[in-house]
Amino acid sequence: MGMEIRKPILVADAVKSVMEYAKYGTQETIDFAEADGRRLAEPLIATNDVPSFDKSPYDGFAFSSKDTVNASTINPVQFEVMERVGAGELPTLKLKSGQASRIMTGAKIPEGADCVAMFEVCKSFEQNGKNYMEIKRTMQAGQNVMPVGSELTTGTALAEAGSLINPGMKAVLATFGYHKVKVATKPVVGIIATGTELLDIDEPLQPGKIRNSNGYMVAAQAKRAGAEYKYYGKLADELEPSYKLVKQALEETDLLITTGGVSVGDFDLMPEIFKRLGAKVLFNKVAMRPGSVTTVAVKEGKLLFGLSGNPSACYVGFELFVRPVIQKALFNDNCYHKQASAVMKDDFLKPNPFTRFVRSYIDYDEQGLSVHLSGMDKSNVVSSLAGANSFMVLPGGTRGYKVGDQVNVLLLEEMKGQSKFLL
Amino acid sequence: MGMEIRKPILVADAVKSVMEYAKYGTQETIDFAEADGRRLAEPLIATNDVPSFDKSPYDGFAFSSKDTVNASTINPVQFEVMERVGAGELPTLKLKSGQASRIMTGAKIPEGADCVAMFEVCKSFEQNGKNYMEIKRTMQAGQNVMPVGSELTTGTALAEAGSLINPGMKAVLATFGYHKVKVATKPVVGIIATGTELLDIDEPLQPGKIRNSNGYMVAAQAKRAGAEYKYYGKLADELEPSYKLVKQALEETDLLITTGGVSVGDFDLMPEIFKRLGAKVLFNKVAMRPGSVTTVAVKEGKLLFGLSGNPSACYVGFELFVRPVIQKALFNDNCYHKQASAVMKDDFLKPNPFTRFVRSYIDYDEQGLSVHLSGMDKSNVVSSLAGANSFMVLPGGTRGYKVGDQVNVLLLEEMKGQSKFLL
Repeated sequence: MGMEIRKPILVADAVKSVMEYAKYGTQETIDFAEADGRRLAEPLIATNDVPSFDKSPYDGFAFSSKDTVNASTINPVQFEVMERVGAGELPTLKLKSGQASRIMTGAKIPEGADCVAMFEVCKSFEQNGKNYMEIKRTMQAGQNVMPVGSELTTGTALAEAGSLINPGMKAVLATFGYHKVKVATKPVVGIIATGTELLDIDEPLQPGKIRNSNGYMVAAQAKRAGAEYKYYGKLADELEPSYKLVKQALEETDLLITTGGVSVGDFDLMPEIFKRLGAKVLFNKVAMRPGSVTTVAVKEGKLLFGLSGNPSACYVGFELFVRPVIQKALFNDNCYHKQASAVMKDDFLKPNPFTRFVRSYIDYDEQGLSVHLSGMDKSNVVSSLAGANSFMVLPGGTRGYKVGDQVNVLLLEEMKGQSKFLL
Repeated sequence: MGMEIRKPILVADAVKSVMEYAKYGTQETIDFAEADGRRLAEPLIATNDVPSFDKSPYDGFAFSSKDTVNASTINPVQFEVMERVGAGELPTLKLKSGQASRIMTGAKIPEGADCVAMFEVCKSFEQNGKNYMEIKRTMQAGQNVMPVGSELTTGTALAEAGSLINPGMKAVLATFGYHKVKVATKPVVGIIATGTELLDIDEPLQPGKIRNSNGYMVAAQAKRAGAEYKYYGKLADELEPSYKLVKQALEETDLLITTGGVSVGDFDLMPEIFKRLGAKVLFNKVAMRPGSVTTVAVKEGKLLFGLSGNPSACYVGFELFVRPVIQKALFNDNCYHKQASAVMKDDFLKPNPFTRFVRSYIDYDEQGLSVHLSGMDKSNVVSSLAGANSFMVLPGGTRGYKVGDQVNVLLLEEMKGQSKFLL
């Protein structure tokens, strides 16, 4: 204990070994009103043609195009205007030759009409108490008419399972009458923060102690990733109560995250707890910075993530290893963070034995994507976490990276994701 | 009525005229647990030094560096190991020359010690029932010690007002004991959908009618933009009841959105309602597609947004005109959508009299940013809304745009935003 030598595995191999245990979750049917931000459990299908009736895209007059075959500036054609059809109203008349109806945008084309002439090309007038209009041009059959199903036909797949329900998706769901929506059930993530040094957020600082931030951070990351969480509180570094709580939490949740207790030190708990649980350790050292001590184990198909107690390492460990498992449970096959290529706008000169995931802020300019160290004061870990919307991925084995270098970046706030980890 | 000629104004001028009425909102104090996704009402300040005590970043031994002045591989120096200091524990002894304490990552450096040697460079042994360690190298004062305030000093600003409370920000808030957080109060957006053609989401389709999707879509957009909404339902195109509801909604909300009823047609309500309210119309035609009939008015400092009944136009109108007002109310000076430059991956060949905002999907590849028409079937409006994470901004006056053209894009899901509209 304490001096164990661990073999680091490559990040991509670590992710792969975790994802072997990731699986689609369950689905539930919820009210349309509650669906924002959830993900579809099945493809979204058009339940009717769009439009569902022959529709006018403009305000104007509907009539038979045949009546205008000989129309021209010197030979205007006149129509008697029979009625007015507003959007949502039904035409009451079948039009005959020489008859037109005033029609509004979105209204149903009357029987006997096959085109719509916009107001701007017609001249209205009254005569003997009747309404007329005249037109000086020929019209084609179908002109300014949106036929049934011209935009969409019943049965068309409009979005795949795993898609995020964003405002546009809400419009689609409403259009097709999905007042109940089948969505992926949010997986429940258990969270336990370990460390004798941890104070609660509302406690005053004490010498030698720090406030627990990892537990709350991971909870917020789980929420952002689409999960629910159950926070089991913080624990001192004591084996017996920790073991019991981990065991209980593992039974009550879909996956479990602990923070702290994974380093190779005197009081490091998690390896011992994993052993007592009979959990299979997938890896306990990853060739990355920060977070090299990240440990992941499996017990009866459930994943246990032993994240580092260091805030940066904890943050990175969650995004690399936990988030794709959650996204997969939400039926999203694009479960990995979207990857981009960006130009560095800050130096990062620390030598890199392992691949480094640096908290960064991605920005956009005329040259494309640029990436900056994040935070108002870039030198400190805490504020850089708050400002991060991405990780720079800096491969190991170099002396450092400089302004102008092109690097890969993982986008933490992109909603769709991609199907492969670090292409 | 019906044939009124409207003068279009430029999009940028329209946005500017709306933003003259945008203002910072109010603030409220909420529990830390509820703060995810909210925006800070004031800058976030460090309430203590980080670290707040001299701290060990590693597991190892703490002692006085002076004792190692002559240490070398042929002259190892030995220390008696006095106690073990775990993270969160306090050292009980002041170390003297020749004494060391075993110390864990995150623990407080004992008095009398000024450096930490990692386990890997020390050799532990027992002799006569006492614990010893020896080291074969010199150590410097301060080596492997994180002094008080070395990362952050009390009073440092860590994030500005208007910043989004993301997972990293939660970690910062927790670190500094913000169990209560001052956040921007969510502005309340009133929503009224007008149109005799509108059915409720749970009604079967009827000839000539469509289901109301705009009201729900705008509600989801308001939510995404950080607002609360109050949905007043849908109304037939009838002046008296519509006027009354608009008047009531305007009194009960911070800003009001109506959808539909703004075109130049027989049954178009909003211009008449604005007149009766005595609201000042800022503009009623914008040189853009879709959404040229977007109308914005002001009544006693409150903005009324008359968005088009066309779903695409409604969506675009919200994002261009309403969202920045909401973001400003949330203290975010970067209230406009982040702008990027991207390469087109699809043709868009429609001639463009006005600037066109095309629903698009932004993606990333080795060449940088690319932009695609959105939706599984790119030709239909409804599914393209669901897949959109951006607008292509296609300036007017051209014959169309082709694959490979570099165009400006507004990013709808980027969290930070920018301080100017369309640079």
